[in-house]
Amino acid sequence: MERRCYCLTLSYDGTNYRGWQRLPGGQKTLQETVERCLGEIFGESIQIDGSGRTDTGVHAKGQVASFTANTMPVELVLRRLRHLLPPDIGALSLTYAPERFHARLWAKEKTYIYRIWNSAEPDVFGRRFRVRIPGVLDLEAMKQGAEQLLGEHDFASFCANPRIKKSTVRCLKALEIHREGEMLTFRLTADGFLHHMVRIIVGTLLEIGEGKRTADSVPALLAARRREMAGETAPAHGLCLEQVSYEIMKNIRGMVDKKA
Amino acid sequence: MERRCYCLTLSYDGTNYRGWQRLPGGQKTLQETVERCLGEIFGESIQIDGSGRTDTGVHAKGQVASFTANTMPVELVLRRLRHLLPPDIGALSLTYAPERFHARLWAKEKTYIYRIWNSAEPDVFGRRFRVRIPGVLDLEAMKQGAEQLLGEHDFASFCANPRIKKSTVRCLKALEIHREGEMLTFRLTADGFLHHMVRIIVGTLLEIGEGKRTADSVPALLAARRREMAGETAPAHGLCLEQVSYEIMKNIRGMVDKKA
Repeated sequence: MERRCYCLTLSYDGTNYRGWQRLPGGQKTLQETVERCLGEIFGESIQIDGSGRTDTGVHAKGQVASFTANTMPVELVLRRLRHLLPPDIGALSLTYAPERFHARLWAKEKTYIYRIWNSAEPDVFGRRFRVRIPGVLDLEAMKQGAEQLLGEHDFASFCANPRIKKSTVRCLKALEIHREGEMLTFRLTADGFLHHMVRIIVGTLLEIGEGKRTADSVPALLAARRREMAGETAPAHGLCLEQVSYEIMKNIRGMVDKKA
Repeated sequence: MERRCYCLTLSYDGTNYRGWQRLPGGQKTLQETVERCLGEIFGESIQIDGSGRTDTGVHAKGQVASFTANTMPVELVLRRLRHLLPPDIGALSLTYAPERFHARLWAKEKTYIYRIWNSAEPDVFGRRFRVRIPGVLDLEAMKQGAEQLLGEHDFASFCANPRIKKSTVRCLKALEIHREGEMLTFRLTADGFLHHMVRIIVGTLLEIGEGKRTADSVPALLAARRREMAGETAPAHGLCLEQVSYEIMKNIRGMVDKKA
């Protein structure tokens, strides 16, 4: 049978998983769970590559994974996969991908959303996906701090891995902070994110919002290239991988549009 | 110490509870959990009366409960209660109530919302609070069926308790069906609801939406006064007790408004 490359889009409630990446000792991870279901469908051992490794407790609305397997109709695979996956993992779409497509290596841009419930009132229905902060937060100050982070910078101060050997330069293309009633959301888009980068950025901006540091202090913080200069890592459960973008997808869509 | 009557408003995610009402054998119920926390705060055994007993797995955004205890500042009690309650129960407000106030006996009107995710796509983030129905539903037919149920009727066909001795006449004041994308919501307001009444009404309307019965058949169904004539009981986890209204609250609010 002909081998095909597949592109799978997933959403998941990460509450009950030890993160994305497969771990030894039968620990429950997202990768392992999805691979097991795909293996059952294709009747062979499947290895998937995610666009990135989400941490324990982090959610995804649009995680992308690639894998190679024998040719099967994607509608059939998607239907079976939806049937086999547990209710906290959703298969959103499955398409054939170009040869050698790799969800991580081909990713051009990622968007994360961090959600906060900024109220002393309990958050019974959203508590799995939002972090509750009862105190007052200065939205303007946080926005000013966010502005200092936009663009291409060395984000070493916002990286949890002190021994990283590769470049810690990333381009933060957007960082929008939005308030609607008690809901406060941070929306970050970049060409890539370092380990814990979103959560350290959010933790630092929250300290600015609480008046513990100033928006003006951000450039020095970037220049320092030292993790201990930045704020606390915000809790995992407020974070959600919203979207992963690929050039190739735009190209494919462009081709489809031209055909239509 | 002077005894006071209190009015407590609660929201809860009912997923992990065996319903509202206290049960023997240490089963985890909402009433028992709230009573235990209040008992700790007041240093005496507290018995609360809910506006009604929500079933296993049913949620509430505005359940109301009354109880009598020694006089303590409500702000202090509320703060302590929020601290003691588990994250799936939220204390929204606590006020002193008029003497002899009883959350069930004084209730004038209740509103329930039933939520459906009408899509073949998985519903990872809303799955605890919505029932997924992938098939096509005829919204207009369901609305026509709903209209036949409005007003004062004998709802015996929509009551799960066949040996009920009290009146099964209720006044259904509103039954709105609303679609927004994949989300389908049923909003029901009545002077009171029989056991499983909302879920049997929704189950019956869904069968109309699926074409299994017609909107025209509803009057005969009401007239039959037989549970087996109506549709299936819709699953518990789609149901949420939205609001309970009291004359006295309107009066209190009216007084406050006049003062302002």
